[in-house]
Amino acid sequence: MFIKQYFEEFELNSSRTTKGRTVTETDIVLHAGQSGDFFPHHMDEEWCKTQPFKQRIAHGTLIFTIGIGLTAEWVNEVAMTYGYERLRFTRPVFIGDTVKVTVTIKEKSDYRKPEYGLITEKVEVFNQHQELVMLCDHLLLVSRKEK
Amino acid sequence: MFIKQYFEEFELNSSRTTKGRTVTETDIVLHAGQSGDFFPHHMDEEWCKTQPFKQRIAHGTLIFTIGIGLTAEWVNEVAMTYGYERLRFTRPVFIGDTVKVTVTIKEKSDYRKPEYGLITEKVEVFNQHQELVMLCDHLLLVSRKEK
Amino acid sequence: MFIKQYFEEFELNSSRTTKGRTVTETDIVLHAGQSGDFFPHHMDEEWCKTQPFKQRIAHGTLIFTIGIGLTAEWVNEVAMTYGYERLRFTRPVFIGDTVKVTVTIKEKSDYRKPEYGLITEKVEVFNQHQELVMLCDHLLLVSRKEK
Amino acid sequence: MFIKQYFEEFELNSSRTTKGRTVTETDIVLHAGQSGDFFPHHMDEEWCKTQPFKQRIAHGTLIFTIGIGLTAEWVNEVAMTYGYERLRFTRPVFIGDTVKVTVTIKEKSDYRKPEYGLITEKVEVFNQHQELVMLCDHLLLVSRKEK
Amino acid sequence: MFIKQYFEEFELNSSRTTKGRTVTETDIVLHAGQSGDFFPHHMDEEWCKTQPFKQRIAHGTLIFTIGIGLTAEWVNEVAMTYGYERLRFTRPVFIGDTVKVTVTIKEKSDYRKPEYGLITEKVEVFNQHQELVMLCDHLLLVSRKEK
Amino acid sequence: MFIKQYFEEFELNSSRTTKGRTVTETDIVLHAGQSGDFFPHHMDEEWCKTQPFKQRIAHGTLIFTIGIGLTAEWVNEVAMTYGYERLRFTRPVFIGDTVKVTVTIKEKSDYRKPEYGLITEKVEVFNQHQELVMLCDHLLLVSRKEK
Repeated sequence: MFIKQYFEEFELNSSRTTKGRTVTETDIVLHAGQSGDFFPHHMDEEWCKTQPFKQRIAHGTLIFTIGIGLTAEWVNEVAMTYGYERLRFTRPVFIGDTVKVTVTIKEKSDYRKPEYGLITEKVEVFNQHQELVMLCDHLLLVSRKEK
Repeated sequence: MFIKQYFEEFELNSSRTTKGRTVTETDIVLHAGQSGDFFPHHMDEEWCKTQPFKQRIAHGTLIFTIGIGLTAEWVNEVAMTYGYERLRFTRPVFIGDTVKVTVTIKEKSDYRKPEYGLITEKVEVFNQHQELVMLCDHLLLVSRKEK
Repeated sequence: MFIKQYFEEFELNSSRTTKGRTVTETDIVLHAGQSGDFFPHHMDEEWCKTQPFKQRIAHGTLIFTIGIGLTAEWVNEVAMTYGYERLRFTRPVFIGDTVKVTVTIKEKSDYRKPEYGLITEKVEVFNQHQELVMLCDHLLLVSRKEK
Repeated sequence: MFIKQYFEEFELNSSRTTKGRTVTETDIVLHAGQSGDFFPHHMDEEWCKTQPFKQRIAHGTLIFTIGIGLTAEWVNEVAMTYGYERLRFTRPVFIGDTVKVTVTIKEKSDYRKPEYGLITEKVEVFNQHQELVMLCDHLLLVSRKEK
Repeated sequence: MFIKQYFEEFELNSSRTTKGRTVTETDIVLHAGQSGDFFPHHMDEEWCKTQPFKQRIAHGTLIFTIGIGLTAEWVNEVAMTYGYERLRFTRPVFIGDTVKVTVTIKEKSDYRKPEYGLITEKVEVFNQHQELVMLCDHLLLVSRKEK
Repeated sequence: MFIKQYFEEFELNSSRTTKGRTVTETDIVLHAGQSGDFFPHHMDEEWCKTQPFKQRIAHGTLIFTIGIGLTAEWVNEVAMTYGYERLRFTRPVFIGDTVKVTVTIKEKSDYRKPEYGLITEKVEVFNQHQELVMLCDHLLLVSRKEK
């Protein structure tokens, strides 16, 4: 569960893929309950039939939650999230779609405090048709081994 | 519930503040269950006592979910989310903290399709001590009234 | 979110319709868990097949919860619920039905404390076939503007 | 679980008391999620501190759900709910209160279809201080044994 | 809700059958959230299609939870659970299966404290095809009437 | 997530300890909702005050669910659960207790099909005072590398 992966140990362009997860009607109903967002796009099947996408779609914040959650496989004790950039929802996720996440080390750069470096992970969420449904950059502040 | 607010009708620097919401232990437990992220930062009170923050903290994705959820007060039929930028979690949110969101129209700009404009909303989540706990830019693609 | 609508400002026979919401299997399972009512009408698909309605039906208390919840669009700071009358469940609600609520100002009357008046709202819940599935009278105690 | 209690077998003025149940913060958070009612009375501890009741209170629909749920101890195969009358919330229910329900057979009357009779149960929900927090009349249509 | 059934009153080979319950997708999603077990067997429909059972299956701990829960119809004030033996999951439970439990008094034996006796209940969970999906022995320590 | 650990590779007496998890009031309320077990031991704080343990306690099936869930850290593709033996709940778990699980390889034995072997894992759940609260033997059927 706990690892120590230092800045020097992140390899540019290396990537990993998470396990998959089917997005269910239950997830959407629970997410409406957690977020308080009961917009008809997510909760009103009849209204959705009148819209271009024809059926209920997952909340963007649900896809972000599940996507980032899938990447949380271990705790890197020498890293912390600095923030996220360029978060985009590129395609709707429907009930029954199965998503999987690819994380790629996209950039390594200096940070104003020299004992840390900045890692940019590209996070891409794909559905079962290998279509990109969400992407963002995850910025991590990581300790350097040799300071 | 449904409104039509066109690009021309967004007033630069205008802002609104949402209702508040107390972040509970229940929210964190449900969010672990939804995200699959059972990291000890959120779920292990004993381990947290050994850490600088001394107690369980809310998931970043939970604060994003609640924060964006609080802003979902009506459906603007002529707008759609384009994405989010510069998402930062500036302070931990603890069990029992109450958050509230301020949304400010920060920028209006052209979009490559001339019938739309791009609105940048600054989203700021504050706790009960008026401390900023999360911020991001929400980009919206909005139809122009006069095309 | 907060408004002030005084007794004098309620217009007899005026009505509003809420957004819609699809009643899901998830809602029924969560409601069994919240109410503790695991009767086979709601939880045992095989038993339901032997009954006149042939499939699982939503709890009455779930339809009341969702119906009244849909009407909770803003807080009227000068009104409070006095009670409910004539609550009836006129048709079963099945998994996948979408409900919507109409609220009509049915009666305005004096209250024993002269600074308040009593408003009776007729609350009607309809399914996607425009069939009435629940109705009740919601009694509100509302401050008078001119006392 | 299944019993057959006919109209003739309901004894006027007889009563039963259910088991008790503590109303938790979790119940309120889950009920907000189920009903979509995120009013600050239930969800914003800071706002509640500025109000007469000083703390978060349970939704009326939650107390109705829990109260009626507690009475659902067996299925009477020859009875069905006709409706509810005179539903009143007489005192706020706070987080940590424990409620218990007393059901009293208050009235037996004829119904327009002679093979049924109408039973009126008085349903009273009490907190741990034996204070009444909710009451209503539950109307039941019950088959007569001798038709 | 509360009964007193003493050791002497348990009749060997007597049995009871509980009410039934349909195992839903919601139950599985909630159970993943409660257990933290997001294995693809339960959560990834696409991966399951590549496996012998072809679809998502319920967690063993979910079937144990629902099975034992179905037997919890009353509190025997003079008995307490001593433990469980020989717990086996004999067949997968799929979304939509309906389970029901049979409890049989299989053995009565002395306990080292003479004021108690040990009851062994055989707990068998069946699906809607009367196939056994789970079984175990439930050991109960029960007070003797005549000590 | 996926590993292949063959029968020969299990080392007798080796052990691992999982991450910890705080058992919350939310877990108990959700577990009542999932199991349908609303016994006062778990749900009625006032009644619990009259009992030897003085406060609400977690369901046995909840501790089994959380305990086994904590051990589910990866999928061993060449192993499957055969069953559980000697499941005992040795101490009550209270709201706010933090549990952690130790798994020890206790026995390796032949199975009637020679291509498999039987592994017995001793599963012990401890609270934050290092007191044992649950234990059982987990039987696994594991493929042999050399058949």
